[in-house]
Amino acid sequence: MSSVKSRTRSDYGYFLTYRTRWSDNDIYNHLNNVVYNILIDSVVNSYLITHCGMMPTTSPSIGLMVSSSCTFVSSCAFPAVLELGLRVNKLGTSSVTYEVGIFEEGVEGVKAVGGFTHVFCDSVHRRPMKLLRAYREGLEKLLVRAGEEKEEEEEETVRYRSAKL
Amino acid sequence: MSSVKSRTRSDYGYFLTYRTRWSDNDIYNHLNNVVYNILIDSVVNSYLITHCGMMPTTSPSIGLMVSSSCTFVSSCAFPAVLELGLRVNKLGTSSVTYEVGIFEEGVEGVKAVGGFTHVFCDSVHRRPMKLLRAYREGLEKLLVRAGEEKEEEEEETVRYRSAKL
Amino acid sequence: MSSVKSRTRSDYGYFLTYRTRWSDNDIYNHLNNVVYNILIDSVVNSYLITHCGMMPTTSPSIGLMVSSSCTFVSSCAFPAVLELGLRVNKLGTSSVTYEVGIFEEGVEGVKAVGGFTHVFCDSVHRRPMKLLRAYREGLEKLLVRAGEEKEEEEEETVRYRSAKL
Amino acid sequence: MSSVKSRTRSDYGYFLTYRTRWSDNDIYNHLNNVVYNILIDSVVNSYLITHCGMMPTTSPSIGLMVSSSCTFVSSCAFPAVLELGLRVNKLGTSSVTYEVGIFEEGVEGVKAVGGFTHVFCDSVHRRPMKLLRAYREGLEKLLVRAGEEKEEEEEETVRYRSAKL
Repeated sequence: MSSVKSRTRSDYGYFLTYRTRWSDNDIYNHLNNVVYNILIDSVVNSYLITHCGMMPTTSPSIGLMVSSSCTFVSSCAFPAVLELGLRVNKLGTSSVTYEVGIFEEGVEGVKAVGGFTHVFCDSVHRRPMKLLRAYREGLEKLLVRAGEEKEEEEEETVRYRSAKL
Repeated sequence: MSSVKSRTRSDYGYFLTYRTRWSDNDIYNHLNNVVYNILIDSVVNSYLITHCGMMPTTSPSIGLMVSSSCTFVSSCAFPAVLELGLRVNKLGTSSVTYEVGIFEEGVEGVKAVGGFTHVFCDSVHRRPMKLLRAYREGLEKLLVRAGEEKEEEEEETVRYRSAKL
Repeated sequence: MSSVKSRTRSDYGYFLTYRTRWSDNDIYNHLNNVVYNILIDSVVNSYLITHCGMMPTTSPSIGLMVSSSCTFVSSCAFPAVLELGLRVNKLGTSSVTYEVGIFEEGVEGVKAVGGFTHVFCDSVHRRPMKLLRAYREGLEKLLVRAGEEKEEEEEETVRYRSAKL
Repeated sequence: MSSVKSRTRSDYGYFLTYRTRWSDNDIYNHLNNVVYNILIDSVVNSYLITHCGMMPTTSPSIGLMVSSSCTFVSSCAFPAVLELGLRVNKLGTSSVTYEVGIFEEGVEGVKAVGGFTHVFCDSVHRRPMKLLRAYREGLEKLLVRAGEEKEEEEEETVRYRSAKL
């Protein structure tokens, strides 16, 4: 596998389905590319809230985005229903790198693959801190471990290192 | 029934479910009110596309919004899932007035009730034209007829007439 | 003057200019109507922050929207620059009804006229409270007083009373 | 210069100013990161329309996004006014890689640096085609040529090649 363009649903461990909205389409009659970024942000934060115990307004630690990227493979349009698959590509001391594959209901090939890196910070001063245990335990379940997908791992390392600049 | 605030799911004939997005919440930790307008627009256009044969880029007639309104009853927040119920309150020669009730999955009371008036226009010159037969047939299925809900009808008439100015 | 459709820039007391965004256009190649609602919300909150001393995360009182409406007069499209004029149509004990006229830079006629009603609430329990003095003083500067525009006042009263349901 | 984090306004050749919107802030009381992507898309398309002769609905060639990335340096919040600087990092036969630096009015340091790659396609079949002469001429004015900023060039090459995967 030489590219994220060949990602399939089986590459991801957690899924949420999102209905597209009228305003998501742009004048080219397909989803504005930024909508993929919006949905990627949504599936990650949903997982943090529902599976890691994060409460955005009261938790002592919140995730702040330091870099993001997305590769667009083929287009889709409102009123499509999208299936977003989430995995964790890297789990550091205070940072997490997520990858999300975006699929259209009833369509096999991936539409877009993107992701971003969160640095977890204390919610008051917003300085990096060690991942809370509950966050780590939740995120480890989605971590793609070395060996399972060796080639992609290497590719991802390059991709995200460069995206971090 | 003296107000749209007492609307229930049984007042609507067509439903779609929308998952909220991280970006929908504003700094008050609830859905930005405008998100309701976005979703109202979405359920209406979904119905037009899937049940009335409208194709936004190729149909000879498209619906253009002339006025909109929304009443907010109580708040909800990401990652809530919302159920949007659609009805037609008025079906004219070229115009249609929709009403949408917004409910949260698992919660009884209505969160917001809004709607808007479309004037159907030819897609090239964008001048009003008689409703296409397929549009009328699809929309009639959701029309709340006089007598069924007499009091609300009167109330709605006032509301939308004034919204049209 | 029988309608908000004849509003001119001189009907408003405070202006902000907003550049439209690529994502604001929908597939009909004009601004998605909801963008007007987004901008109306923005000019009101800007005024509250910069002229009334409101700080969204720390003030004891915040404005929560209870109803909104908008009338669309003619369309415009990205990359247009929009000029939003704000006035206050009604200033109650705890509630404020704003009206916003939306104009396009270099174009005389109004594009849309909308508004909404805020009920000011304590920021913790979110129950209605009397307007803070600083808010009232700032908002009074934009209040359209009876006599200045008698006919519109009456019309507006009808419009917003019904929008409140 | 070892990172895009040290970009200054002088690194960019074309600027547009965007006023932020109330809905841009998320519950962490700063701009939702995706807003940067929205604005990056806006300044690029504005330049294509106003300086390269592109007309989104009638031009024979339109730009479709194949990949995007963004690095977030520090946060800002509504009602901030943002200054977006545009440059072209790579100009190929049919593709263009843009970089946008996002600054806040009155603040020196860069807030975010992002960009994306457009492949220009015929507007009907959406297959890649050679850049129209008017597009190329307009974009060349913003091209950062080798030698001017040799180190960054190399860094960029790595960054965008990997973002394309």
